[in-house]
Amino acid sequence: MLLRWCLFAPSPTTEAAMSFHKLDDLGRKLEALEHALAILGADEATHMAVGGGEKRAKAMAALAGMYHTRATAPEIPDWIAAAEGEELDDEQRAALAELRRQYTNLTCLPVEFVERQTTARMRCEQLWRALRAKNDWAGFQPALEGVVALVRDEAALRSDVLGLAPYDALMEQYDPGNRTADITPVFADLKAFLKGFMPEALAIQEARLRKHPLKPLSGTYAIDRQRELGLAMMAAVGFDLTHGSLSVSHHPFCGGVPSDVRITTRYKTSDFLSALMGVLHETGHALYEQNLPKAWAHWPLGKARGMAVHESQSLFVEKQIGRNPAFWRWALPVVEKHLGEAWSLDDILPHVHRVERGLIRVDADEVTYPLHVILRYELEQELVSGSLEVADLPEAWDARMRDYLGLSTIDNPADGPMQDVHWPGAAFGYFPSYTLGAMMAAQQWAALTRERPSADEDLAKGNFEAINGWRREKIWSQGSRWSTPDLLERATGEKLNAKHFVNHLRQRYGG
Amino acid sequence: MLLRWCLFAPSPTTEAAMSFHKLDDLGRKLEALEHALAILGADEATHMAVGGGEKRAKAMAALAGMYHTRATAPEIPDWIAAAEGEELDDEQRAALAELRRQYTNLTCLPVEFVERQTTARMRCEQLWRALRAKNDWAGFQPALEGVVALVRDEAALRSDVLGLAPYDALMEQYDPGNRTADITPVFADLKAFLKGFMPEALAIQEARLRKHPLKPLSGTYAIDRQRELGLAMMAAVGFDLTHGSLSVSHHPFCGGVPSDVRITTRYKTSDFLSALMGVLHETGHALYEQNLPKAWAHWPLGKARGMAVHESQSLFVEKQIGRNPAFWRWALPVVEKHLGEAWSLDDILPHVHRVERGLIRVDADEVTYPLHVILRYELEQELVSGSLEVADLPEAWDARMRDYLGLSTIDNPADGPMQDVHWPGAAFGYFPSYTLGAMMAAQQWAALTRERPSADEDLAKGNFEAINGWRREKIWSQGSRWSTPDLLERATGEKLNAKHFVNHLRQRYGG
Repeated sequence: MLLRWCLFAPSPTTEAAMSFHKLDDLGRKLEALEHALAILGADEATHMAVGGGEKRAKAMAALAGMYHTRATAPEIPDWIAAAEGEELDDEQRAALAELRRQYTNLTCLPVEFVERQTTARMRCEQLWRALRAKNDWAGFQPALEGVVALVRDEAALRSDVLGLAPYDALMEQYDPGNRTADITPVFADLKAFLKGFMPEALAIQEARLRKHPLKPLSGTYAIDRQRELGLAMMAAVGFDLTHGSLSVSHHPFCGGVPSDVRITTRYKTSDFLSALMGVLHETGHALYEQNLPKAWAHWPLGKARGMAVHESQSLFVEKQIGRNPAFWRWALPVVEKHLGEAWSLDDILPHVHRVERGLIRVDADEVTYPLHVILRYELEQELVSGSLEVADLPEAWDARMRDYLGLSTIDNPADGPMQDVHWPGAAFGYFPSYTLGAMMAAQQWAALTRERPSADEDLAKGNFEAINGWRREKIWSQGSRWSTPDLLERATGEKLNAKHFVNHLRQRYGG
Repeated sequence: MLLRWCLFAPSPTTEAAMSFHKLDDLGRKLEALEHALAILGADEATHMAVGGGEKRAKAMAALAGMYHTRATAPEIPDWIAAAEGEELDDEQRAALAELRRQYTNLTCLPVEFVERQTTARMRCEQLWRALRAKNDWAGFQPALEGVVALVRDEAALRSDVLGLAPYDALMEQYDPGNRTADITPVFADLKAFLKGFMPEALAIQEARLRKHPLKPLSGTYAIDRQRELGLAMMAAVGFDLTHGSLSVSHHPFCGGVPSDVRITTRYKTSDFLSALMGVLHETGHALYEQNLPKAWAHWPLGKARGMAVHESQSLFVEKQIGRNPAFWRWALPVVEKHLGEAWSLDDILPHVHRVERGLIRVDADEVTYPLHVILRYELEQELVSGSLEVADLPEAWDARMRDYLGLSTIDNPADGPMQDVHWPGAAFGYFPSYTLGAMMAAQQWAALTRERPSADEDLAKGNFEAINGWRREKIWSQGSRWSTPDLLERATGEKLNAKHFVNHLRQRYGG
């Protein structure tokens, strides 16, 4: 029930920067709508009553429509152009540039096209949910064909406006500056390495397990104790519990707003590592959000840079920190304190470093995961260019799966090209972010340890502040000031280089 | 992070009812903003991180501003006028009338005035919070004088637009149709009765406690068990747990939206009754919200009628049902099942029916509570009319407090005219709702039991459906179709009549 409305006077504007101030005010209104959408989204997955979904969906669609209408208002380009002639400082100029970029990306598709695509995408996602369970590729194929046809159109439309190659224009939504010309050779190096290294890592693992058999996770780990352990780890790693919280949801996520970051996990009483590693991963996302520049929060400039950078931050905490043996020297007593179970480093690390060939990307470890991504990166470029048709996807998927991972999905499309929601959801150009994130995390760790050779000792002492200080300066405080490749180069002193990730895998999983 | 925006085509409109459809679409947008504000408000009190408040306040103020701008758009009266000439059914005509009423109430104060008042109100509320703790009337008085001066102006402005007497024009915001000409004589009857009855009820209580000493609440009632007990009671009484939930907050409330009603309580491990009675009270509010007409949800017509009616629904569940001895015949085994403690009816009822003179309204029982309200109703009319000045309030309060309750507050303004947030918050005309609600609940119970003499037996069996069926038909399904007095008269067959509440008190607390 809403009985009173507060009215506020418009912010004062100076003649000197009137257009910039209009954009600034607009940013504050958009931030309020984003705040509502972010909290409503997190609430839906954590606290909403089961019957509240229909009204929630309608409310969020209407709020998203209001956001879109305001963010794409036709007068915005004029305001931007006028503001470019005003007296502004460097940050304001950077804010303007990022505003222009956002406006272009939000308006490069005609409304009529977005409506058709939304309909096709929603229908395909619904079919995917129903038919994946039945392993029914034949029923799913026509819907995916419809989505792919529209994605080809979308790529062409974006390409025209942005002056980029079609697939690059799709990637540009997720990480500005990411280009196949830069990524493809790096992925090629990585793929060549992994095809040889994966069997080697598996053989090494097998030999080790023969000598030192796996100690199973055999306790019953009470959920409230696992939760306390998760909170203790979050706080230690740097999560600000006065600006965020940990809840339970079916699929773990990091949501909310920078002033109130909502991360979630799910618990199995038979396995504390699964929830804990998930908490560390989401804590990585949360640290980025919590440490974005507050003064820029209402501008696109103040947002996290993109999906690959975000994934680099979550993987930095999960893989570079959370699966580092030095970290476990500090973490094992914490685990023992909360769960009452003592583990030795030799017993826990085989769990934390488990490598396994599998069909499912989201279950993959850090050695095999990139092959899942590279397979999708290659196939989706062919789908977008038209050199591969959806009808031929199961065979193409199976051929690469056998080549890269030695597994076949030919009779099992549910675990082949039907396994992810991304393609039914028309999110082409997104998949590379995962492995780019893993590579960037390794490259950041390498850069950090060049400057601070004692980083491993820091971890072993549970001292995360020096590491976080480097990340705050190089990544978090930069918001969206630089393109994704420029941000990486400024932070690490070099362009994306597979060498660091390869060295990381060799060191952790090699002989 | 928001990467994708759904765009929706405008709803199709027919030439026949174009203006009505515009208003219908507007209603859906306003409903989305209300949804966001309601969930953000509930979330703030239950799940928000402590550091999230500043951004939350800004986001909610901006969303409230968007709501106000849309709900008061200057073209709305033209749309309403045009729609009145369109072919509409009865419900649509009722929706139009209520839209017009809401528009008038939202626009009858100039924006400039609302801004001044908001500033004065917020300053006075902040001072109140700081100075109440110090019992500092002298520091508080000037701020309250400022608020009262503006409330007098507000009453005059509303009076001009609505053609009502100034205080009636203030009450009209909270319960349309409530008039001092109807309420004052009823309150006068009630006051006369209570001044004699209260000492009588206290004497009877004392005599009973001499014969049968109070069995104290002496257990340690674990919070999770109290919560399960609360949920069991909510569900039994009719709360739909697929469209709502129970959480913890510092001040209990009922919030959220009809499809997802959020109620809260707070627990004391030394006393299960305090949380339980609170849960029953909020469940009463929730039943009203959950059972409002869904087809009208996006119109003012589909909202709960007003504050007195809402309070009648919460008090119906708390007092008419939840403090009824018949209810406790059913409830005691439920309490025993959840808390493992057996209570006899003779032991529990003295707690449930405890009467006590006190200074504080929110702690008062159903016998003394109306005297607290009538005191405020009388004083605030004098403050609005100008026959009483703020400087004279402590004496005026004390005089009536001694007269009605035999207690003095002359040296204790913190527990006198500084005890409530309503006046610093400029909410004059609100207080009568509480006692009107209590009287209306008793009148509804009387009407219901005339039709269904077995209602007590229903309670004793834990059968709430017949009682809820009556309430659904008479109150809940009616939304805002009738004014508050008309709704009561249609439901109970007569105008507001103190007799029913008096009979209720006599029966429960008399000799």
